[in-house]
Amino acid sequence: MAETSTKAEYVVGVDLGGTKIYSGIFDNSLEYVGTAKVSTKAQRGTDAVIERIARCVQDAVDESDLSLKQLRGIGVGAPGAVDAEAGSVIFAPNLGWRDKPRHVVGIFVGTGIGGGLVLNGEPYRGANHTGGEIGHMVIDVDGPKCSCGNKGCFEALASRTAIFQQIKTAVKNGQKTLLTEMLGNDLEDLRSGDLRKAIRRGDKFVEKVVEEAAEYTGIAVANLVNLLNPEIVVLGGGVIEALADEMMAIIVEMARDCILSGTSKDVQIIASTLGDNAGITGGAVLAKRLTK
Amino acid sequence: MAETSTKAEYVVGVDLGGTKIYSGIFDNSLEYVGTAKVSTKAQRGTDAVIERIARCVQDAVDESDLSLKQLRGIGVGAPGAVDAEAGSVIFAPNLGWRDKPRHVVGIFVGTGIGGGLVLNGEPYRGANHTGGEIGHMVIDVDGPKCSCGNKGCFEALASRTAIFQQIKTAVKNGQKTLLTEMLGNDLEDLRSGDLRKAIRRGDKFVEKVVEEAAEYTGIAVANLVNLLNPEIVVLGGGVIEALADEMMAIIVEMARDCILSGTSKDVQIIASTLGDNAGITGGAVLAKRLTK
Repeated sequence: MAETSTKAEYVVGVDLGGTKIYSGIFDNSLEYVGTAKVSTKAQRGTDAVIERIARCVQDAVDESDLSLKQLRGIGVGAPGAVDAEAGSVIFAPNLGWRDKPRHVVGIFVGTGIGGGLVLNGEPYRGANHTGGEIGHMVIDVDGPKCSCGNKGCFEALASRTAIFQQIKTAVKNGQKTLLTEMLGNDLEDLRSGDLRKAIRRGDKFVEKVVEEAAEYTGIAVANLVNLLNPEIVVLGGGVIEALADEMMAIIVEMARDCILSGTSKDVQIIASTLGDNAGITGGAVLAKRLTK
Repeated sequence: MAETSTKAEYVVGVDLGGTKIYSGIFDNSLEYVGTAKVSTKAQRGTDAVIERIARCVQDAVDESDLSLKQLRGIGVGAPGAVDAEAGSVIFAPNLGWRDKPRHVVGIFVGTGIGGGLVLNGEPYRGANHTGGEIGHMVIDVDGPKCSCGNKGCFEALASRTAIFQQIKTAVKNGQKTLLTEMLGNDLEDLRSGDLRKAIRRGDKFVEKVVEEAAEYTGIAVANLVNLLNPEIVVLGGGVIEALADEMMAIIVEMARDCILSGTSKDVQIIASTLGDNAGITGGAVLAKRLTK
């Protein structure tokens, strides 16, 4: 039987989302060796969610045939305003960009909308380490109420929650859609991937809702480009991942329409290539840095 | 007769606004020794405006009993996206903040709306030196058309141009206001100070227009605070200077309502104390730095 190393040489990245917790174990070269996923169950409260994070990490450790002793550190990407000095991650940039003098805006469209800024090559944190609240940029002062209390936040217009809410309200008001044929009238198990399926089967209603979310996203991108003049804007998160083909062209077109002439004409606006692994990879990068 | 020094020991700051050009001559201690003001006449084209800048500088030199030979450098604060490396200023921070590790957002509400970011203690420029386009942040997707082509930019909602446009349109449609008694029906010579006078004489219409502009400004401040988590937001420019008593309390209240709880609760939101001299002082600081 081969001897198993028990040196603490692995790091864990955790992506704490509004819907699911996703964790990955990474080796020293930041190749991942195992992952696990559990639902977040945010409604059960903070303690329950923390327990579920621990369970998710344990599951990923088991999946990787390792023991907890072999873990050197853990990096957690969490939604909302978090304090990096106190141990949480605000934004973990894509691996390839480490130590490069780039200005990057990251936008993650999922249950909510999160974001991160890399300015002058460093994660930007602001005075109290709460910078990067892209999701609560008001872009429609008369828009729908957001969970934060404001009206017309980017998140209230283009997040999965906003898109689903709009679809469910329309269905209650008699809107016909393939989604109810696929999932029943309550649409309880609706996922971003279902929107893609409905659109590809010709559902014009769902197509329009997704198009509008993409247009709002494009306006938000333009606001950030006009303000921060980055080289790259990277879009990720579950909604973008499921609907990149449907949304990215519209996002890019709307953004380019709204970016001021003379500024940032050559900004790249791209979908993240890390997909679902962006969060855990970022967490692992941070864990590795902090335990150097 | 006392001998006059002809050493090049003075610097010039120029504030190039949409309505006026303002220049000031500063000595080595950055105390100003003379100023001059001419109207911009932007409609006459770039070459004419450049000539007018030169005339304004010459006027300030004459006013200061100096000659051009005694000038060491000139710093120009210009509206819109400008290239700092190519010789223009994007933002010249208030003197007191030089070399301090602060995060500052500057918002200047005048003919248009300009802004500047000092992040991690340094003027923030972005990839192509065009960062800081605060005035073209879209905050009302269905709002009025902006000169840039977008709809609902901050500048299209709260600049002097936007405020005046709204008042003039309302007057054409029969709105009664003290302003027409003061200035005649065409309101040709309308200035920000007239709005203050009308409000203080009890003009509820003008009060409402200015209040709405202040509310939009508060929302823009909150967007920037949520995004950049600065220690200080400084508001300046002709509109704020003329209407600080009428606008600042509303701006601060609306901003604090819209700033996310948990982020930046202690951010300071203040009116610039440099008033009309902010632009020329900033230009002089830059000129002094670049000619060291």
